[in-house]
Amino acid sequence: MRLFLLPPTFNKGSSLELTGKDFNYLIRALRLKEGQCVMGRDRDGELWNLTIVKVMKSSCILSAEKTEQIKEQTDALPEERPLKRITLYQCLPKGRKADDIIKKATEAGVRDIVLVKSRNCVANLEGKEESRLSRYDAIVTEAIQQSGSIVPTKVSGVIDIADIPKDFAARSEGLPTLGLVLHQTRLSEDQSDLFSCVRGFDGSTALVVGPEGGLEEEECQALLKGGFKAVLLKTNILRCETASIYAIGAVQTILESSCQ
Amino acid sequence: MRLFLLPPTFNKGSSLELTGKDFNYLIRALRLKEGQCVMGRDRDGELWNLTIVKVMKSSCILSAEKTEQIKEQTDALPEERPLKRITLYQCLPKGRKADDIIKKATEAGVRDIVLVKSRNCVANLEGKEESRLSRYDAIVTEAIQQSGSIVPTKVSGVIDIADIPKDFAARSEGLPTLGLVLHQTRLSEDQSDLFSCVRGFDGSTALVVGPEGGLEEEECQALLKGGFKAVLLKTNILRCETASIYAIGAVQTILESSCQ
Repeated sequence: MRLFLLPPTFNKGSSLELTGKDFNYLIRALRLKEGQCVMGRDRDGELWNLTIVKVMKSSCILSAEKTEQIKEQTDALPEERPLKRITLYQCLPKGRKADDIIKKATEAGVRDIVLVKSRNCVANLEGKEESRLSRYDAIVTEAIQQSGSIVPTKVSGVIDIADIPKDFAARSEGLPTLGLVLHQTRLSEDQSDLFSCVRGFDGSTALVVGPEGGLEEEECQALLKGGFKAVLLKTNILRCETASIYAIGAVQTILESSCQ
Repeated sequence: MRLFLLPPTFNKGSSLELTGKDFNYLIRALRLKEGQCVMGRDRDGELWNLTIVKVMKSSCILSAEKTEQIKEQTDALPEERPLKRITLYQCLPKGRKADDIIKKATEAGVRDIVLVKSRNCVANLEGKEESRLSRYDAIVTEAIQQSGSIVPTKVSGVIDIADIPKDFAARSEGLPTLGLVLHQTRLSEDQSDLFSCVRGFDGSTALVVGPEGGLEEEECQALLKGGFKAVLLKTNILRCETASIYAIGAVQTILESSCQ
């Protein structure tokens, strides 16, 4: 089910006018016509039945009716998928790479993206956290709309890598937990096979992805002591912005598989 | 095993000087020191034992010795992984998105990336194919180095979507084949679960990823007649540049899993 994220200016009235990006999205991208319906979600998470009442040159009028549940049949895309909870702990990458990582993870329905400071991080958000998080929020909003995600993805952080186990336990709200550290060089200990770790698991999954220089052995060991498992991806050395979405694809496909 | 791709200027002599990007890669990125060894591959695919003889401010001297096989222990990163053969049939996306797709697919060791023209492609390489393919070659070269891939990834095309089954059969060189079409809306026919399609398969796998507007139902049906299976990813609607690496991560992880 593709949900339309209502703009912050929506006053929960019975009709609204959309312009700019929202207009472009519904009318130009989704090509909705007068009379067609979409489901919307406002900034408080409430659901709305929306109907396109009138399409003008650069704006459109919608009627809005509050609803308790997602309607089965509307004119905007596919079925609802309640996806299993995934948290991405992403060590801060350089430059604009975080934008791409956040966009792709949001599309895939990752529930929480937590930015992490680890020893090899070159990027430093100190003093810029607030402005950066607000840019990431805008990226998340756009990606949620584009992908029809019903997962309310949130970006938070920056936390220290040592605090990941505690943070993950708190986020998992009592669900069984599976914490995975992607590590691309062999550790002295055994590393698990991603497939066998994830297969059949039902609960809250975390993925820790290192920065450009990778994680230090010590940092890995601390996570292992905190209950995480180190997994070696059976592929080449991936850049951090490739590793995250590659691993999300693998983990989510195995988690969501009906044939366990 | 991380292999260093020798520059085209390497004359197969017993020593060579590296400058610019190659120097940066070995000395700055990999932080190799005098006396350390790496394995190299020249443009004809031949293997070389390379030793850093001298590091200067902006260049370094290496000794080169031809070899028949990859040495077990050198100073540059991990073990060799013979990855199963994956072909990505990527319908031409808009703008520079292909750059990102090609880079990530190469890192992950996709063997062939074939650019495809389908009905909803907005991009058009007509008359620009040669210059574009040479840009893609440069992207592949860089990604191979960065990821230490031993897969000689090649970008080719543009072919028509109708020719995919024939092209895939020819590329698979007699291996068993598994052709998958990613399709994000429900088809009238049944769609397979990616996990159960791929699990336990050993052979040559193809992934067809549509352009921004997706594939037409007719195009899908033609691929199904050509022996391909339609798979629905159990996630949100992904942009084409997200779908490709997401699906490569899923497929490769399942293919390479030791626990079938």
